[in-house]
Amino acid sequence: MAELIHVPDAADPRLADYVRLTDGQLRRSLEAAEGLFIAEGAKVIRRALASGHLPRSILMAERWLDSLADVLPALDCPVYLVSDATAEALTGFAVHRGALASLTRLPLPDLPDVLASARRVIILEDLVNHTNVGAIFRCAAALDVDAVILAPRCADPLYRRSVKVSMGAVFAVPYARMTDWHKDLSQVRAAGFRLLALTPADDALDLEDAVTSSGGKVGLLLGSEGDGLSSHWISEADAAVRIPMSPTALAKGVDSLNVVAAAAIACYTLTR
Amino acid sequence: MAELIHVPDAADPRLADYVRLTDGQLRRSLEAAEGLFIAEGAKVIRRALASGHLPRSILMAERWLDSLADVLPALDCPVYLVSDATAEALTGFAVHRGALASLTRLPLPDLPDVLASARRVIILEDLVNHTNVGAIFRCAAALDVDAVILAPRCADPLYRRSVKVSMGAVFAVPYARMTDWHKDLSQVRAAGFRLLALTPADDALDLEDAVTSSGGKVGLLLGSEGDGLSSHWISEADAAVRIPMSPTALAKGVDSLNVVAAAAIACYTLTR
Repeated sequence: MAELIHVPDAADPRLADYVRLTDGQLRRSLEAAEGLFIAEGAKVIRRALASGHLPRSILMAERWLDSLADVLPALDCPVYLVSDATAEALTGFAVHRGALASLTRLPLPDLPDVLASARRVIILEDLVNHTNVGAIFRCAAALDVDAVILAPRCADPLYRRSVKVSMGAVFAVPYARMTDWHKDLSQVRAAGFRLLALTPADDALDLEDAVTSSGGKVGLLLGSEGDGLSSHWISEADAAVRIPMSPTALAKGVDSLNVVAAAAIACYTLTR
Repeated sequence: MAELIHVPDAADPRLADYVRLTDGQLRRSLEAAEGLFIAEGAKVIRRALASGHLPRSILMAERWLDSLADVLPALDCPVYLVSDATAEALTGFAVHRGALASLTRLPLPDLPDVLASARRVIILEDLVNHTNVGAIFRCAAALDVDAVILAPRCADPLYRRSVKVSMGAVFAVPYARMTDWHKDLSQVRAAGFRLLALTPADDALDLEDAVTSSGGKVGLLLGSEGDGLSSHWISEADAAVRIPMSPTALAKGVDSLNVVAAAAIACYTLTR
């Protein structure tokens, strides 16, 4: 049974896993150094536990205990009970969603292992926005994409915002991270995947036609929020593909979708 | 030519249109009372002007003047030049994106007028998140949905965050707001639209099959972020439709897409 411990002081070192959760730079270095990530809300915490992540601790106001009553008896970690004021002083925001959990990261599988059992994968280049990464995992999970591959610099799916927006889908979809931005796409192609680069370019193929004619394994490349895919990745792809845009929209200057909308349509098309 | 006026003091009443831009409650009442909205960034401001919205004033740091050099000569409104510190004290955030403009809202067209020239429309019930509303307008514009219809309580497409996320698509897609949540769907049906309610329910029809078999005019109903469509709207619809979810995902508890992802797939399917 998890031990319940009241902690009044936000500076207590036992709460260090939860410090300044809104400070992206601090959190990236702290979470990498400690091998931890933060899950928020009973539903997402339950999914993190069910997918084999070991809890380091749980932090919550006492009134939320019931929300995790089903899982606490089996846990072997401290549960820190704090006031709302302590939680806010510690984390940097008003914690409205109930419990927070600090969990141990699992080693990520290697790229070949993830590819071995997949047929339809999404490959994310340098997305910077954690909300977008989380939303894309949610799309991938709901629409049956087998795996997600991340470029070395793509934002972390286990960052708190990603986990939350994904509703826990980051635990449901296998993913691997490339180690070499320049060379690793060739590993995906060597594993038998046809690489389709999603762009708004006029001369790209229609996404749906390209997926239909591809038949076998497909890897769909999505680029960063501002600049889209790099020219290197576009040149490495087997084909450039596009979601057809309205000519009326183009005339009015609306020339692309945001990356989550594009990813949703791409996942839907890949697995339809 | 717009008149350039240096204003050092954030409390200067001439800057009142831009006060506390991050305070949603204040902005909703201020913008409704004054009949104004705020556009952010040169590209979006240019689109707002091109779609016939009259500027009340423009606010920017002097270094951004060049970004609007093409439109300022034709404008008949003051351009307030402020320091970054004044801009932040006034608006409540660090204004990084260049210029802000305060523009006059145009009267919205009536529901029958918007429906008269449309074949494919999206109908939003009580979405609360301005980012989602903006992203859905961007999808609608890019994918050729003819119009958007808003329930009386749906978030405002001309709220600053909506305008920004839409990249100006809120100026490109005609929209109307219902006055009667309970009765106005029947007006849409009376105008010849088949109403499809998007839900995650297992027994709903496949979205794509339903759109294909509908043939003529279609109105697609999307519900709020948390609870989806009301039972009243689902019962008013001609059919409930769903985007097929992966059985694997369902088993893992990922049972739906976020509303922007769902809207993107819906717009794509409607106009494909």
